[in-house]
Amino acid sequence: MPDLFQQIETDHDAAVERLINFLSIPSVSTDPHYADDVQICADYLRDILKNDFKLNTDTHPTGGHPVVVATTPSNLVANPSAPHVLFYGHYDVQPPDPEDKWETPPFKPTIRDGKVYARGSSDDKGQVFCFIEALRNLRAAHPEHKYPCPITLLIEGEEEIGSANLPRFIKDNKDLLKADICIVCDTSMWNETTPAITYALRGLLYFDIQLHGPSRDLHSGVYGGTLANPCNILTRVLGNLFDDKNRINIPGFYDDVDEITAAEHSAWDALNFDENEFLGKVGAKPFGEHRFTTLERRWARPACDINGIYGGYMGKGAKTVIPTFAGAKVSFRIPASMDPVKTAKLFTDWLKNQNVADLEWKFESHGVAYPTSSPLDSEYMQATQSAIQSVTGKKPAMVREGATIPIVADFHQALGLDSLLIGFGLETDAIHSPNEHFGLDRHLLGIKTLAQTLLNISQLKK
Amino acid sequence: MPDLFQQIETDHDAAVERLINFLSIPSVSTDPHYADDVQICADYLRDILKNDFKLNTDTHPTGGHPVVVATTPSNLVANPSAPHVLFYGHYDVQPPDPEDKWETPPFKPTIRDGKVYARGSSDDKGQVFCFIEALRNLRAAHPEHKYPCPITLLIEGEEEIGSANLPRFIKDNKDLLKADICIVCDTSMWNETTPAITYALRGLLYFDIQLHGPSRDLHSGVYGGTLANPCNILTRVLGNLFDDKNRINIPGFYDDVDEITAAEHSAWDALNFDENEFLGKVGAKPFGEHRFTTLERRWARPACDINGIYGGYMGKGAKTVIPTFAGAKVSFRIPASMDPVKTAKLFTDWLKNQNVADLEWKFESHGVAYPTSSPLDSEYMQATQSAIQSVTGKKPAMVREGATIPIVADFHQALGLDSLLIGFGLETDAIHSPNEHFGLDRHLLGIKTLAQTLLNISQLKK
Repeated sequence: MPDLFQQIETDHDAAVERLINFLSIPSVSTDPHYADDVQICADYLRDILKNDFKLNTDTHPTGGHPVVVATTPSNLVANPSAPHVLFYGHYDVQPPDPEDKWETPPFKPTIRDGKVYARGSSDDKGQVFCFIEALRNLRAAHPEHKYPCPITLLIEGEEEIGSANLPRFIKDNKDLLKADICIVCDTSMWNETTPAITYALRGLLYFDIQLHGPSRDLHSGVYGGTLANPCNILTRVLGNLFDDKNRINIPGFYDDVDEITAAEHSAWDALNFDENEFLGKVGAKPFGEHRFTTLERRWARPACDINGIYGGYMGKGAKTVIPTFAGAKVSFRIPASMDPVKTAKLFTDWLKNQNVADLEWKFESHGVAYPTSSPLDSEYMQATQSAIQSVTGKKPAMVREGATIPIVADFHQALGLDSLLIGFGLETDAIHSPNEHFGLDRHLLGIKTLAQTLLNISQLKK
Repeated sequence: MPDLFQQIETDHDAAVERLINFLSIPSVSTDPHYADDVQICADYLRDILKNDFKLNTDTHPTGGHPVVVATTPSNLVANPSAPHVLFYGHYDVQPPDPEDKWETPPFKPTIRDGKVYARGSSDDKGQVFCFIEALRNLRAAHPEHKYPCPITLLIEGEEEIGSANLPRFIKDNKDLLKADICIVCDTSMWNETTPAITYALRGLLYFDIQLHGPSRDLHSGVYGGTLANPCNILTRVLGNLFDDKNRINIPGFYDDVDEITAAEHSAWDALNFDENEFLGKVGAKPFGEHRFTTLERRWARPACDINGIYGGYMGKGAKTVIPTFAGAKVSFRIPASMDPVKTAKLFTDWLKNQNVADLEWKFESHGVAYPTSSPLDSEYMQATQSAIQSVTGKKPAMVREGATIPIVADFHQALGLDSLLIGFGLETDAIHSPNEHFGLDRHLLGIKTLAQTLLNISQLKK
């Protein structure tokens, strides 16, 4: 074992104490009741990064909660010509409710069976502190207490409420955030012993669509069969969304979807993903676009979901009404290579071309998020894979993600940065739920991996 | 003008005073706050019918509000061998809210521009009192103060809350309610000057159907495209309910639907119904089963309406969820000759045959109501038509109704009675709304028409 890893292990008990202090601050971003705590948490981070780490650090106000940005001063960088790393994480957490379902209080971090139980332990404070502890150890290991390469930390306080102010902040602070590669620590491992690098995320577009008809609610006995019922017509339109192979029925929809490469096919097969187990856990069975596996459908194929539908009488019992309108929440997940703005237009054009009798559409977009992907063969990717291999003795799983992390697209579009998504969470960490926890073994693994990744990147040329 | 009509006109001011007293009792059936008033109203009716009319009268308790039944004693019937008439109406009313929208208080009946404004004035107390005043005048006109034929009045107090207890009451009191023909006074005129006889009503079946899938709400990024989303599948199923001619797509559905006869076609054409005006008033245009007019679709063709649909996220904004279930309220209106129980089975069988992947159906029936029709060529129908013609100088409109009056089917099934539906309401009477009213001219017309109808029926043989 290299000296660095030895030192990280020796220091780990102290690192866990520091993590517990950080987790004790209830930085719940969505609830105004906790607003002071969120500010305290940002200030706490700033003070550590400024005083203990000697970084150029500020909390930056936004329209919402502050962003903490800290950068290595040039005199503390061992290799100033190495690539500049931008680290992204978030210090805000989900609300703890239902609080009575917690075995120990959400903001009194408690260690049981080698895991720390607290809100934010896995998502994302625990992962942020993996990176911070990596920095601490790298500096301690360097004879002149220098960092291996230029590093900027960007730690936001609004991820759990949609990062509404972050894209603006990034656009307004391009110089401050100038870097060569981004490391994002907010994802999961492939399984308990295999770290994963996420190299592609699907994008998202989300609409509220409504069909409006009669000027008032009508008696379905008097009017039934004589006019266009918005519920009837909406289901007819949405019922056309898929063909009999469960493909999205919108002309041109698949034009920009990249085929899955042979290399990806064989890499994913090697992951031995058990689709029946994955779906069985939530009481479901595989179902979707013909000719694709569950992993392919999740990672590399577009999906369309009706996330909600509403109209007419929705209470108990019976009411014989023809309602004035009916609506649905319809979203699309799109793989890299698809453009959400173009896709949105395909969808709304398709809706407008449906026969809806004399009913009228009202569309409301709830925004688009671009899909992203990072090159699999870059030197940064190799540096990260190699770090994981030297820590764990095995190759990381190279994965994609069906969900969306919009900020990754902002890093690409505003700052020109690819992102390395390296995460140490597990699906079983109960994030967003009672009894959220984070394994201390994974905390240790994260510190080592991130430290080694930074060392490897410091050996690269820009 | 015959002496009877002259006498009815002379007495009309006094009749209006009596109606105002009856309308002053706030007999709101749905609101327990008014329970005492509902009982007071039933007792008030009983006392009048017993003391002023010398009928054998009782208020009969039910599981809910009482039913008032009054029968002519044989010594007060001029022609005891004439057909026995059962009159049906209801003394309960809708709640008055929103009360602040009333120009004068709902239970302080007020006369303006020849109309009485009060809750229940048109639906149905005003119409009930047309019949009662007809009886008063018939008796006054007879030299021995006798009624022309045997008559039973059945006046219930739960029509506005679904008549839940009446079918049971009818089944349990077949002897008390024994009659030869039923007169129902709770419908509308064709227009302001043309009374209508309604000879057929559509039946109703109403379901809550739900598709259940995942065991918990899922993140649509992580799971989207890999499993059956209940909202997606429900819309696909419901989207199949109609074919491209807007016909209901269920095999065998139309097998029992009677063709519209040539006589009906020409009679309905003669009504000069303006479908664009009818639908334009509610902001709609004609739409429905191909090759049929709006009147035909309303009166003689089946209809299927989704009265409500619900599932997933129904609030403002966006939530990227795949819900555990989605549901819809689905009802059918069926013309005479269709059987609602058979139709219900066709529908649920059809649902079960749809491809819903691994999702599971849950069906809940909210009951069925049979359609009804009365023979157009019966002596009773002719007696009624002739009465209307002698009062108004013109033929009544012979109409069907798209809506359902379930109790009419109960009269047929339990008592073997056809019903004559003669109503004096108008669509503009604002029933169930603020400022409900009833024209005093129609009140007078109703008294004359019902009196003459009873006289005509008393000349028939059983």
